[in-house]
Amino acid sequence: MRFRVEARDGRARAGVLETPHGDVRTPTFMCVATYGAVRGVGPDDLAGIGAQILLANTYHLHERPGEETIRGQGGLHGFTGWRGPWLTDSGGYQVSSMGDRVVVTEEGVAFSSPLDGRRRLLTPETAVGIQEALGSDVAMVLDECQVPVTDAPDAGATGRRIEEAMERSLRWAERASRARKQPGTALFGIVQGGVSEALRRRSAEATVAIGFDGYAHGGLGLGEDRPQRAEMVALVNESLPEDQPRYLMGIGKPVDLLDGVAEGVDLFDCVIPTRNGRHGVLFTAQGRLHIKNARFKDDSRPPEEGCDCPTCTRHSRAYLRHLLHIDETLGARLASLHNLRFYLRLLERSRDAIRAGRLAALRDELEASAGTADD
Amino acid sequence: MRFRVEARDGRARAGVLETPHGDVRTPTFMCVATYGAVRGVGPDDLAGIGAQILLANTYHLHERPGEETIRGQGGLHGFTGWRGPWLTDSGGYQVSSMGDRVVVTEEGVAFSSPLDGRRRLLTPETAVGIQEALGSDVAMVLDECQVPVTDAPDAGATGRRIEEAMERSLRWAERASRARKQPGTALFGIVQGGVSEALRRRSAEATVAIGFDGYAHGGLGLGEDRPQRAEMVALVNESLPEDQPRYLMGIGKPVDLLDGVAEGVDLFDCVIPTRNGRHGVLFTAQGRLHIKNARFKDDSRPPEEGCDCPTCTRHSRAYLRHLLHIDETLGARLASLHNLRFYLRLLERSRDAIRAGRLAALRDELEASAGTADD
Repeated sequence: MRFRVEARDGRARAGVLETPHGDVRTPTFMCVATYGAVRGVGPDDLAGIGAQILLANTYHLHERPGEETIRGQGGLHGFTGWRGPWLTDSGGYQVSSMGDRVVVTEEGVAFSSPLDGRRRLLTPETAVGIQEALGSDVAMVLDECQVPVTDAPDAGATGRRIEEAMERSLRWAERASRARKQPGTALFGIVQGGVSEALRRRSAEATVAIGFDGYAHGGLGLGEDRPQRAEMVALVNESLPEDQPRYLMGIGKPVDLLDGVAEGVDLFDCVIPTRNGRHGVLFTAQGRLHIKNARFKDDSRPPEEGCDCPTCTRHSRAYLRHLLHIDETLGARLASLHNLRFYLRLLERSRDAIRAGRLAALRDELEASAGTADD
Repeated sequence: MRFRVEARDGRARAGVLETPHGDVRTPTFMCVATYGAVRGVGPDDLAGIGAQILLANTYHLHERPGEETIRGQGGLHGFTGWRGPWLTDSGGYQVSSMGDRVVVTEEGVAFSSPLDGRRRLLTPETAVGIQEALGSDVAMVLDECQVPVTDAPDAGATGRRIEEAMERSLRWAERASRARKQPGTALFGIVQGGVSEALRRRSAEATVAIGFDGYAHGGLGLGEDRPQRAEMVALVNESLPEDQPRYLMGIGKPVDLLDGVAEGVDLFDCVIPTRNGRHGVLFTAQGRLHIKNARFKDDSRPPEEGCDCPTCTRHSRAYLRHLLHIDETLGARLASLHNLRFYLRLLERSRDAIRAGRLAALRDELEASAGTADD
């Protein structure tokens, strides 16, 4: 995997990530295909709206259908029919959120499967092995993500917990790095440390010292506000190599993406466009539409005027409202397609804006309209 | 609306139905889009698999979003984006199946809506008016369909009930015929009479005497066996004009369609391909596949070898099994697309077979393989 920066605008950069399954123009948004599919949306649909790289989840695919099945079908590319690049999340975050089912030890993450109750163990080594079996273009190291809890005894206790998880994640990162067997699968390190400047800087420097093909900002989007998040991203980016890709994990709303772009982030993923779409919330340049609202009952305009997506070029707000109103899965599909296209187009526009030196103007434009409301 | 028969093979015929929204080559299968959408499948998808005409339901669209909304969006064609022909079922059957909510009087069908509990009345005249407002190419008369009940006091009572419903349907048909206002919307009569030869012949002759643009076989698929159904269809067809289209409502499995074709039926509809698809049952020339079965876990073959549908040309049994196994809506979509294509292709092949004088051979071939098992 190779990465080159082609243009800069402040700290933002536009570049190209070369993978074994094609080039990815950055910054870009990775559509979330947890189980190897974006809900209701097929590989041809995704290519049609300009998707370049998809994200799947190691833990979920390990459970069903299992990495050996996928390896036997030619990896994620052969199995799913999406022949462009795949990034796989390590599954640490998904496992962490299982609560009582999980025990984190130095060895790894032990948990009882929600599927059959049987004991599973995910280690830094097995997480890499599974992702290599999946044929992933970009694998992520197993990390321990500590979600801030509001009922913690005191801030000090929370801080110690986050610090311990961060230090353990560093030891795991080193083990993951040594576990690699497939040169075709790139491996990204993940910076942790909550919203502590000292912890995140320590995590960034130690992760870079191990040496990865790219670096991710982990453990964000968990309650911090926008300025705080931007500060953490900026701080960490100072420690990351300029010539390697940076990925802000699981973030977020349209304005959050442009915040990240402005700080020099290259890759994003988030379930917001598809989840909101399924619930009838559509992103547009004029703000968000709650399409199930009665005022759209007889509205013959496309969901977003000027949008080039398959939904807006063929269907009206009235039809989309009707479909979502009756829980017709075509509605979820059409809304997801539009929202994904909105996200992909926003990143396309940010790439153009960086090359033209006018990213700030694009951000102002977006701030003035869409995405400012809370989800 | 015009219909012409172009070729015959025994009682079977191949023809063309000319509608204001394009020609339909018959015999054909109408994909079921009850609420103006085939679940998870858009108009472009349907055109891509060779669909020519869709079926929507008057009652359902009257409830949501209401015919005035659809009229305001350019009828079903403008509202849904399917710009080919639409046939609308009158809703009588759907209302009849509501049980205690329904009271049938000479005036029409009164029922409390499952949506808001409010009283609704569907009459022969309003059913035509709603379908004209929807901009339907082919409307169906309101009929009363008596479902045979197993706990009837005696066969005589059931017979009288079916006869009364049939006679009332005839009076309604006459009212429907007089209620027409839009010459662009064709109107089909519906033959009732259960599985009684005398009643069906009486219904057919009286319906033809009123005079419609086409005729449907109603009240079948309700427990009779294949030979009994074929006999009823054959008997009624003797009374129907040779130069008008015939529609066998709501039937059925692949072999049932070819039974109908052989008796001279031109139009079919059924939810089997989409409903079975959603449940992971796929039709193939080699029989039905229960794709969720573990034996397909690592099967890299397409669902049906040689099939030209978007599913079979892009995806494996292993992937489809995985998607249906995890209840991913893309799985239901891909399975529905395949099954609809299977049905549409079967009717394409039957048109070719009729022109070549070899429909019997096509039926033998199908009997020997797919569709013989019960659903």
